[in-house]
Amino acid sequence: MHVVVPFAADTPKTRLSGVLAPTERTTLARAMLADVLSAVVATGHVPTVLSTSPLTVESLFSSDDQHASVSPALESLREIPVTVDDRPLTAAVNAYLEAAEEPVAIVMADLALATPAALSTVFDAGAADGVAIAPGRGGGTNALVVRHPDFRVDYHGASYVDHREHATEIGAPLESVDSFRLGTDIDEPADLVEVLIHGREDGNQSRTATRLRELGFELETTDGRVTVVRTESDP
Amino acid sequence: MHVVVPFAADTPKTRLSGVLAPTERTTLARAMLADVLSAVVATGHVPTVLSTSPLTVESLFSSDDQHASVSPALESLREIPVTVDDRPLTAAVNAYLEAAEEPVAIVMADLALATPAALSTVFDAGAADGVAIAPGRGGGTNALVVRHPDFRVDYHGASYVDHREHATEIGAPLESVDSFRLGTDIDEPADLVEVLIHGREDGNQSRTATRLRELGFELETTDGRVTVVRTESDP
Repeated sequence: MHVVVPFAADTPKTRLSGVLAPTERTTLARAMLADVLSAVVATGHVPTVLSTSPLTVESLFSSDDQHASVSPALESLREIPVTVDDRPLTAAVNAYLEAAEEPVAIVMADLALATPAALSTVFDAGAADGVAIAPGRGGGTNALVVRHPDFRVDYHGASYVDHREHATEIGAPLESVDSFRLGTDIDEPADLVEVLIHGREDGNQSRTATRLRELGFELETTDGRVTVVRTESDP
Repeated sequence: MHVVVPFAADTPKTRLSGVLAPTERTTLARAMLADVLSAVVATGHVPTVLSTSPLTVESLFSSDDQHASVSPALESLREIPVTVDDRPLTAAVNAYLEAAEEPVAIVMADLALATPAALSTVFDAGAADGVAIAPGRGGGTNALVVRHPDFRVDYHGASYVDHREHATEIGAPLESVDSFRLGTDIDEPADLVEVLIHGREDGNQSRTATRLRELGFELETTDGRVTVVRTESDP
């Protein structure tokens, strides 16, 4: 199975622009990508980054990376291949699906809470000629395994609903995978709470949580609700 | 194992007051409670409703309930016991824990996406002297299994973080259960999207989704994001 991680290298995470400057958003997006790639490699798969512009994977993983101390080895992380395709997400993924000769998994690059266990569950899910989806909040398709040759993606809008209908149309059985970790994509300021709460639970440290803390973010509880506050600098 | 479902019968779902009138919020809260109780009964457990005021469980399940056609039988649903405790959530649950002589599971009444499979996973999780939690968005404790005699709850704020620390303090091993369905409590208008998307996937119809549709809610996609709109009436 091919595992593809699409990455918008040029305009990352615009919905976080209220709390993070452009270079900080790039830093955070790259930390999330590194965490996702690291979790995929730990499942035993070699991911391909499908990037909108050239990307040096080595630069995601510094030689003093404290986060790769447990698994997987730094060398295997730094050898992850990159395919550049500057088309929009849907077109790029469909081109990849069309050319693929074996099952393909598509994992979003902002699933900062992804663990090897959660990813293995979705990689192993679905029938031999079917589709498996770990839905995201708001009807997103956060992780997807495609084993049916005719399945194509459309990431616009409530893509989970559209993908479910499309699977029915082409007769591909669909399995929905129930995962809070894979259901949590980091798009908006409120999502940063989840990184700080859950970002370091499976033994490996979370690069994303580390970067957020370096940027001055911490949890705050007000009126019984939890938010993030930024104590050091502002964009 | 005792399964307890706390229910705030008097002031339900105030954060939905922007889109639902008080009586409608009561209708929705009761539909969610009915869905949760139905899912618990389908796991083979008999839940107890821990209600802030007297509640007739029979009235949650009408005799022409289309949703109970698959499982479980309507009679077993209508015989669910109710314990009235008008104290705040934390105090009422702790009193229950203190009196209990066997493990206790506490399942929030607004987990409208709960399925028997997701609940069984959390009921079966955790060590014999430990604690298992299915966290909610924002650090909530949406479903909790307590097998350690000294564990007490504190639902204020980021309760998942506090419960994790408390478990460490008393030497109770904690297992976190990764479930999108149990992680999704229905508190705010944006959460209604999840009910309409995921509310009827496991063969049983969702009472909550049915009520929302009766109230005129449907999905709408604007600028690539999914929201609910209300087509018929407004509060």
